[in-house]
Amino acid sequence: MSNSTFSVSPVGEIQSSLKNLTDALRQGSEGAPEAWITIKPAFARAMHRLEPGDDVVVLTWFHLSDRTVLEVHPRNDTSIPLTGVFATRSPDRPNPIGLHRVRVLEISENRLRVAPIEAIDGTPVIDIKPVLDAINDS
Amino acid sequence: MSNSTFSVSPVGEIQSSLKNLTDALRQGSEGAPEAWITIKPAFARAMHRLEPGDDVVVLTWFHLSDRTVLEVHPRNDTSIPLTGVFATRSPDRPNPIGLHRVRVLEISENRLRVAPIEAIDGTPVIDIKPVLDAINDS
Repeated sequence: MSNSTFSVSPVGEIQSSLKNLTDALRQGSEGAPEAWITIKPAFARAMHRLEPGDDVVVLTWFHLSDRTVLEVHPRNDTSIPLTGVFATRSPDRPNPIGLHRVRVLEISENRLRVAPIEAIDGTPVIDIKPVLDAINDS
Repeated sequence: MSNSTFSVSPVGEIQSSLKNLTDALRQGSEGAPEAWITIKPAFARAMHRLEPGDDVVVLTWFHLSDRTVLEVHPRNDTSIPLTGVFATRSPDRPNPIGLHRVRVLEISENRLRVAPIEAIDGTPVIDIKPVLDAINDS
């Protein structure tokens, strides 16, 4: 099996009212706020034909994560047995990529307003993909 | 905005009957086959408590992609206008990460049998996440 590593270059960044992990954890998915995604000018052409109302998956890089963690107690609840991170959404994991399904609310030049998204301010955005099908897609 | 890049280390690899891109493109999501994912021993603990029947999102790295592509004709159909890759599922994109929603069919030591998945044989796997909710999740 290959031992190559790959280099991920952020294509943009989140601007959010969530300023730290405590804000984000307190929030949960029900109350996650809207945020702006600013796409770097070099990648702005990749937004072409995205439109308000589109449902997309935003991929982020959890830059504050601990990449050495392989097992966690889900939701930091020690009454739940240790669980491999591939069976959890823990941000601490070998490749700390976040998936956020959001709706595009507004597009202004190289910026997208989206909701709901619980990533904190300054989180790098590494990809955006359309949601193709509500059931079979991700 | 930060210009840091991040290093992705594969946690495993796909073993599939799809041996090349032509096989994969011909197939489409309806007919995608099952495949084995072999997790590297160093990351096997991260599989703990994954079980057959679980629905997961497998993140792959499309190692054969052209990362300079920002716009494509979807499905290589030139009658469809050029579209930014963030509005398509093109494997050619700045950070060529694939999302595959699959069901775990079998687990054997550090290997998972999953379906359906249209990634070609040898594709690096970079993360696995549980599907939390059919509607609001990815």
